[in-house]
Amino acid sequence: MNARTLDPAQHLIEREPYYEPIGDEIQLFEAAYRQQIPVLLKGPTGCGKTRFMEHMAWRLKRPLITVSCHDDLTASDLVGRYLVKGGETVWVDGPLTRAVRAGGICYLDEIVEARKDTMVVIHPLADDRRTLPMEKLGQLVEAPPEFCLAISYNPGYQSVLKDLKQSTRQRFVALEFDYPAAELERRIVVNESGIDAGMAEKLVRFAQMTRNLKGSGLEEGASTRLLVHAGKLISSGVDPVVACRSAVAQAVTDDADMLTAIQELSSSLF
Amino acid sequence: MNARTLDPAQHLIEREPYYEPIGDEIQLFEAAYRQQIPVLLKGPTGCGKTRFMEHMAWRLKRPLITVSCHDDLTASDLVGRYLVKGGETVWVDGPLTRAVRAGGICYLDEIVEARKDTMVVIHPLADDRRTLPMEKLGQLVEAPPEFCLAISYNPGYQSVLKDLKQSTRQRFVALEFDYPAAELERRIVVNESGIDAGMAEKLVRFAQMTRNLKGSGLEEGASTRLLVHAGKLISSGVDPVVACRSAVAQAVTDDADMLTAIQELSSSLF
Amino acid sequence: MNARTLDPAQHLIEREPYYEPIGDEIQLFEAAYRQQIPVLLKGPTGCGKTRFMEHMAWRLKRPLITVSCHDDLTASDLVGRYLVKGGETVWVDGPLTRAVRAGGICYLDEIVEARKDTMVVIHPLADDRRTLPMEKLGQLVEAPPEFCLAISYNPGYQSVLKDLKQSTRQRFVALEFDYPAAELERRIVVNESGIDAGMAEKLVRFAQMTRNLKGSGLEEGASTRLLVHAGKLISSGVDPVVACRSAVAQAVTDDADMLTAIQELSSSLF
Amino acid sequence: MNARTLDPAQHLIEREPYYEPIGDEIQLFEAAYRQQIPVLLKGPTGCGKTRFMEHMAWRLKRPLITVSCHDDLTASDLVGRYLVKGGETVWVDGPLTRAVRAGGICYLDEIVEARKDTMVVIHPLADDRRTLPMEKLGQLVEAPPEFCLAISYNPGYQSVLKDLKQSTRQRFVALEFDYPAAELERRIVVNESGIDAGMAEKLVRFAQMTRNLKGSGLEEGASTRLLVHAGKLISSGVDPVVACRSAVAQAVTDDADMLTAIQELSSSLF
Amino acid sequence: MNARTLDPAQHLIEREPYYEPIGDEIQLFEAAYRQQIPVLLKGPTGCGKTRFMEHMAWRLKRPLITVSCHDDLTASDLVGRYLVKGGETVWVDGPLTRAVRAGGICYLDEIVEARKDTMVVIHPLADDRRTLPMEKLGQLVEAPPEFCLAISYNPGYQSVLKDLKQSTRQRFVALEFDYPAAELERRIVVNESGIDAGMAEKLVRFAQMTRNLKGSGLEEGASTRLLVHAGKLISSGVDPVVACRSAVAQAVTDDADMLTAIQELSSSLF
Amino acid sequence: MNARTLDPAQHLIEREPYYEPIGDEIQLFEAAYRQQIPVLLKGPTGCGKTRFMEHMAWRLKRPLITVSCHDDLTASDLVGRYLVKGGETVWVDGPLTRAVRAGGICYLDEIVEARKDTMVVIHPLADDRRTLPMEKLGQLVEAPPEFCLAISYNPGYQSVLKDLKQSTRQRFVALEFDYPAAELERRIVVNESGIDAGMAEKLVRFAQMTRNLKGSGLEEGASTRLLVHAGKLISSGVDPVVACRSAVAQAVTDDADMLTAIQELSSSLF
Repeated sequence: MNARTLDPAQHLIEREPYYEPIGDEIQLFEAAYRQQIPVLLKGPTGCGKTRFMEHMAWRLKRPLITVSCHDDLTASDLVGRYLVKGGETVWVDGPLTRAVRAGGICYLDEIVEARKDTMVVIHPLADDRRTLPMEKLGQLVEAPPEFCLAISYNPGYQSVLKDLKQSTRQRFVALEFDYPAAELERRIVVNESGIDAGMAEKLVRFAQMTRNLKGSGLEEGASTRLLVHAGKLISSGVDPVVACRSAVAQAVTDDADMLTAIQELSSSLF
Repeated sequence: MNARTLDPAQHLIEREPYYEPIGDEIQLFEAAYRQQIPVLLKGPTGCGKTRFMEHMAWRLKRPLITVSCHDDLTASDLVGRYLVKGGETVWVDGPLTRAVRAGGICYLDEIVEARKDTMVVIHPLADDRRTLPMEKLGQLVEAPPEFCLAISYNPGYQSVLKDLKQSTRQRFVALEFDYPAAELERRIVVNESGIDAGMAEKLVRFAQMTRNLKGSGLEEGASTRLLVHAGKLISSGVDPVVACRSAVAQAVTDDADMLTAIQELSSSLF
Repeated sequence: MNARTLDPAQHLIEREPYYEPIGDEIQLFEAAYRQQIPVLLKGPTGCGKTRFMEHMAWRLKRPLITVSCHDDLTASDLVGRYLVKGGETVWVDGPLTRAVRAGGICYLDEIVEARKDTMVVIHPLADDRRTLPMEKLGQLVEAPPEFCLAISYNPGYQSVLKDLKQSTRQRFVALEFDYPAAELERRIVVNESGIDAGMAEKLVRFAQMTRNLKGSGLEEGASTRLLVHAGKLISSGVDPVVACRSAVAQAVTDDADMLTAIQELSSSLF
Repeated sequence: MNARTLDPAQHLIEREPYYEPIGDEIQLFEAAYRQQIPVLLKGPTGCGKTRFMEHMAWRLKRPLITVSCHDDLTASDLVGRYLVKGGETVWVDGPLTRAVRAGGICYLDEIVEARKDTMVVIHPLADDRRTLPMEKLGQLVEAPPEFCLAISYNPGYQSVLKDLKQSTRQRFVALEFDYPAAELERRIVVNESGIDAGMAEKLVRFAQMTRNLKGSGLEEGASTRLLVHAGKLISSGVDPVVACRSAVAQAVTDDADMLTAIQELSSSLF
Repeated sequence: MNARTLDPAQHLIEREPYYEPIGDEIQLFEAAYRQQIPVLLKGPTGCGKTRFMEHMAWRLKRPLITVSCHDDLTASDLVGRYLVKGGETVWVDGPLTRAVRAGGICYLDEIVEARKDTMVVIHPLADDRRTLPMEKLGQLVEAPPEFCLAISYNPGYQSVLKDLKQSTRQRFVALEFDYPAAELERRIVVNESGIDAGMAEKLVRFAQMTRNLKGSGLEEGASTRLLVHAGKLISSGVDPVVACRSAVAQAVTDDADMLTAIQELSSSLF
Repeated sequence: MNARTLDPAQHLIEREPYYEPIGDEIQLFEAAYRQQIPVLLKGPTGCGKTRFMEHMAWRLKRPLITVSCHDDLTASDLVGRYLVKGGETVWVDGPLTRAVRAGGICYLDEIVEARKDTMVVIHPLADDRRTLPMEKLGQLVEAPPEFCLAISYNPGYQSVLKDLKQSTRQRFVALEFDYPAAELERRIVVNESGIDAGMAEKLVRFAQMTRNLKGSGLEEGASTRLLVHAGKLISSGVDPVVACRSAVAQAVTDDADMLTAIQELSSSLF
């Protein structure tokens, strides 16, 4: 077990994370970063947004602090709070504050899942004030030019209750992500799972078939990540049809008819 | 009374738990385990998911830490919290953290019952980062290769409110569980309740009849566990019809008509 | 005033509680107890479920710890919590833990009223693991063979929101309770209220009339307990018609028409 | 200002509270009290339920502890809690516990307004167990024979959300309250407000007119208390029509048409 | 900056607050005060209820303690709570308790906005018991004759959720407030804003026009307070039409059509 | 990193913030400020309300304390609270209190997002009492003449749940904001992003086209802030069409058809 302290300097990513660009997202991110405009990543699950952030953090040589947002994430969880230690009340910075102070990249994953106060606390950081008011500490922290705020969300899951307000989204430059093109996705699957190119090509074709079912009873198609899972099972000796059922079909749906349909797709391929 | 400390090393299962495989679930689990992909168990209540996990933990010689999820289970309940002891604030790891540190298997039973923050806290553990950010402790724990995350849920209970998000489920290899085949189920009932094979066969036939009523007024059919209950009552001298009413019929429904119908089924068999 | 400490040993019931069996419930409970299967009591209010539990506890010579469940009953209320005493944090077992440690009977009355986490915390105790994980204390308590878990609920009050999940109910042997037969109920009323057999017979006939009104504007008929109340008022010199109005009619409904109808029933009898 | 300590012995009512019985409620209460059955008072606001309880407490020479129930009243508010005083944690009994220990009368006013846990905490006190389990203190308090539990509610306000469950109401003998008969009400108004009998008679006639409007746009008619208010304003020199508008009409409704209608009623009388 | 301690004696109002009576409200309040009946003020926003309370407090020479009610106002906020100071737990009276002890006037503004427990805590103070039970302190405070309880609400905003229960409202003498008559309102505007009588008359006429629009797309007409705002802007050199738009039209509505309509009304007058 | 203490005196804005007036808003704000009437700013996101407040604070030489409101902002967050420091309980003023004491400008951004208690706590500050009652500290702070309260909201987002009550809004003079006229907006974009006037003019025309789509599938058009973002990306070398897609189209909508439509608008311009 390896327990690194959450010291921002240690959030530096030392080895280049494997990332295959799908468009001009690297150039756009770098332009926004230089202009100190915060960035919003949009796209379905498992298409590489988190990996992209790791890649950019490595490229820009900035520590990356990632926070997975959820219903119970409070503004204090991000900014910090007083804790009692040995009878003394000491202030402990939250991950957002640590990122601001260290001039790092703070990546709030699935921002729409967060409570409203979490979204509002980033407003003064996300316009040209670039400040983080820490009411409880009595400080106003100014972000250094190296600091960068990035958030992500999946437009496919938007609902009335979980929406990104215009007053939030109109503070960001937005980058769109989607599944990679076939040739590129094949290369990723080979690289990450260790199977051969022929098998990877079949898996990619299989994934595209499931993606076409989206809207016809399937909430979401198979992500690249699921193909990597199937590939890894196959390279561990699991039969491809069984691997597709367990790593892909069962992972995307519980519907019996849908499961049969997807099963037939994989049986026809392997 | 025997109060074992919740030391992960003591969660090792020493005697082989009785488990009859119903398909290739053992091979698939082992492949996913070797490839460090987390596992999702799907299936109805009482069909052996918990027993399977105990069996796999014994097989892989890893401590098993089980958490029953519910509406009020917070991320802190899983990860840990500060407690005040003797005037000092001390950190106490939660069960998920203990499992990660010990390289054990953490099994989150009925994950959809948990609060959303609980589901999100496992995201960085359930992709190739395999890390557990402990914001409050200021540590980022990296899971050792031996660590394994497993979750379960019952697709039959899914609702709009209690759903497994695609961004969660697309991180797992999924194994399907169902009631065992007749011959196998008979063997299990004999083995666990001590009744003879003839009586066990009748109980299995009875269970299958109730399972056919699912959807026609019955929320769920009799699980293998209920057959074992009935068998145990019978081996304690209770009349089989009474045992079926008390251990099976009354356990699956409150509906008067349904109870009569099931009663008639058992009367025709015993 | 007599304030007994909640020491489980002191929950032993020394005198035989008066209980008239209505079927084979005593035999079934004893069989389940010997086989270490938990028990679920079903039935309307005031028909003797609590008294039955006291009787069984006396019979089996085990301490009985009863918890009335409600909306705000947390898992911690059952399992225990840390309290600060004299500057020190000390752990205080909850009633469920005390019952487990003492090998007693823990009776959770009206379980469906409890919060979901309360229902889930009993799962590992209610299957063949028979363990109580105490996450906050860091202990896993194994229940001794003498421990018994019993829960009750009233199927007549079931609603979508307050339901017993299949994954909970399929862990129990279920015993059905109902109002006692006329002759038996008469005997109970005489024994508990001190009125003569003729008056008791009239009260029982009156109760049966109200039970026939269930569904025709009456939520529930008069329970045996209400007959005992009426009997006690009568033996204190209250006129039977007045006693029936105050102890029965007004206790089961607020509806003016229903009150008149029930009043007429009692006027015709006394 | 006079701040009496909430010592139950000091809740004794020394002077006879003025109370005019409207039926056999005094006899019924005394019978229930002797038989140790708890009492439920039903009736509209301002018809004398609280005064009746004060009268009975004086009659039975028991301290009276009244609790006004509301949405946020917890079981702990009734039973007691630990408080930190001078660094020590000390237990402080709640009003219900104080009443039980002192053998007093505990009156829970408007019980349906309370949270569900508050209703359930009185269950073991309200059947023949007559015990108050104090989980947090680790004590089981047995109520002495002098203790009496009384609750009240207004059936006119019942709704699906705020309902008295059968399992609660079937533990009580119920007494019905209503507005007093005209002659009696006149006597009360004279006695309490100091106006003469002629004026009081007119006020009573006025009140009856408003009560007939109940259901025709008026939620509730004028209570006896409002007549006393009007009488007091009149005896302070306010014109009767103005007093009726201010103390009665405006107090029962905001509806402009209804206010005009009631105003016309009073103008025709005075 | 001037920070007065919230000592009730310092809540005495020394200079006569400017108040123009609109009816017999002063006489009625004084009668209710002498008879120790609590008072309910009804009326739209900005028509002078708060100013009236200040005037009456000055007239009766009693300290005035005002509490603006809202959703999160708890009973403890009114009654008081324990605070830890220098390691000791000390009790701090809430504003209601301070008013009771000091024999002052406690004015609960917009009472229907408060939580239900806040409304119930005033019940024993608002009937002839005139006591404030302080459960947490263990005291029962009796209100001295000088104490007066007053509450206000705006019937125009009533909804099912935010309603004054009959059991609350039938404890008060109710005073109705409305916009002052034209001549009176003109005098108020001149007195408070410093503009001349001609301009004030036009503003009053303008206000009446907007009040006629209530129900035809306008939630509420312009209050006297808004006329004073417009008058003050005008006396600061702002053009009357601009002042009417900014201080009145934009303050009462966001609807574009309505804004145009009101704009035309003011253009026609100035 | 630069962490200024939140000392109000340090909230003084030293350099004139760039602001182009769009109407008489500066004159109106100054008149309201002199007359001590609080100010409400209305308008869509990104049209310069925050910048205007910074400009006015600089003009009036008062410290500016800005609070972004949200669902979980409590009255205590604004007013202050007790914190335990080194064993002692010390009071810490909230931002509103600091602004009042320092005679500064307190700007509550997006007030309708705040909880109801937050809105009510400003009532006594927002009428002619100009006082801030600090119940927990036991002080009544009087605002000095220099203090100014300003709030903002976006009428386009109003809903039944998030509404500004008449009793709140009728305390303010209201200033309307909108997108600047074309010529003015062009000047702002040039000044803030560094692109040339021709490019800025095209961007402004593009923004106007998107604003015309409001209501036809677009929640809100492009704000001036988004034009500045696009301009900055362009001046960093990004292609104008790509910049418009990333900084404008993707920032205002997720709808695929809408994105195509906006893309076509920008392609036709650049």
